[in-house]
Amino acid sequence: MTRARTDIEQVERANTAFYEALERGDFDAVTDLWLDPADLVDGTGSGGPSSLTTALSRLPVDLEDDEDSGTTGAAEAVGPTADDSDDGADDFGDDGFGDETEGAAAISCVHPGWPVLTGRGEVLRSYALIMANTEYIQFFLTDVRVSVAADTALVTCTENILSGGPAPRDGDELGPLVGQLVVATNVFRRTCDGWKLWSHHASPVLAESGDDEDDETPS
Amino acid sequence: MTRARTDIEQVERANTAFYEALERGDFDAVTDLWLDPADLVDGTGSGGPSSLTTALSRLPVDLEDDEDSGTTGAAEAVGPTADDSDDGADDFGDDGFGDETEGAAAISCVHPGWPVLTGRGEVLRSYALIMANTEYIQFFLTDVRVSVAADTALVTCTENILSGGPAPRDGDELGPLVGQLVVATNVFRRTCDGWKLWSHHASPVLAESGDDEDDETPS
Repeated sequence: MTRARTDIEQVERANTAFYEALERGDFDAVTDLWLDPADLVDGTGSGGPSSLTTALSRLPVDLEDDEDSGTTGAAEAVGPTADDSDDGADDFGDDGFGDETEGAAAISCVHPGWPVLTGRGEVLRSYALIMANTEYIQFFLTDVRVSVAADTALVTCTENILSGGPAPRDGDELGPLVGQLVVATNVFRRTCDGWKLWSHHASPVLAESGDDEDDETPS
Repeated sequence: MTRARTDIEQVERANTAFYEALERGDFDAVTDLWLDPADLVDGTGSGGPSSLTTALSRLPVDLEDDEDSGTTGAAEAVGPTADDSDDGADDFGDDGFGDETEGAAAISCVHPGWPVLTGRGEVLRSYALIMANTEYIQFFLTDVRVSVAADTALVTCTENILSGGPAPRDGDELGPLVGQLVVATNVFRRTCDGWKLWSHHASPVLAESGDDEDDETPS
């Protein structure tokens, strides 16, 4: 089995494990599958800076004001850097983004229809909230595509979700079951503890794409 | 300036250039900013297999059938592979996913409310379609966060969009202007030609997140 094939299977397994943990309501397993920056600082083995660096622009970006960014950015990207000996580990928390603990802010999550959540605190709190309000959830994954480049993997999939909330009046029965058609992009990083989620972005499929050749026509 | 700081600035510039190209309706610039697998096969310099490998599961994933994937996947991920000398370049097109040209399928894009589009053909066709139906579009980016790990960068941002379609009856005026609140997760790869988009996932912000401490409350 080739290394590439092995990577793809491992990523697919990590992706499946994530949805299984959500189905079981297993908060610890969900927590464990999200990237912890400490995993990267420990070194993941395949070259380049292994730590995550994060920056936040708090002000709106002025798209007018940097006229040469369209073409010269590419050339600059391969130019020498002023301090190649810097492995980036001490850049955690730049921009007042907190200490190494808060550097976990580097992970991000978007639930369908939600704004961006950033950092392990916000992300994991959102899962605790969702689990507390979900009695039953099942994911039928289709169109799972895995793309691997070195230590990063991108997974896109369609989440056909069937879920039910708590009973409306403290009864014993489930709330009404709801079906949802959602698409997700999941980004994984290879760590010494396996592939971990760096980003999850899920969104509702609301309309036909307008592309006749697209066979993923939403219901 | 540290290498990490330089990376973040270059990624932010590539992200800005992408939205500027959309604002100008500059299809060539948009095309140029999307990753071409050839960029990776040429080698990006910092270790690990530099080619993209992609696989597609055409059948639904059975979440029940792999009981041990929750915990053992992590251990397996660092185990030795059967063929470490394989750089993965010859795995393009596995699973009948086409030749190296079609291997561009590794890029993916989700427009707000759309299903997943995969590959340069589908992705770029969607931009041509959107541009043909958009007379005017402006992005006010806020909450831009950049996270870099080796040769991959993750950008999350809020796209405050103001757009107008063609005039309804072949008139000279713009169609009605529409405001949209959208959040995006953009994944970039470092190539010898600068940072390129590997994935763009944008979704509408539909509701309050339910998190009182979240200051990104949608309008």
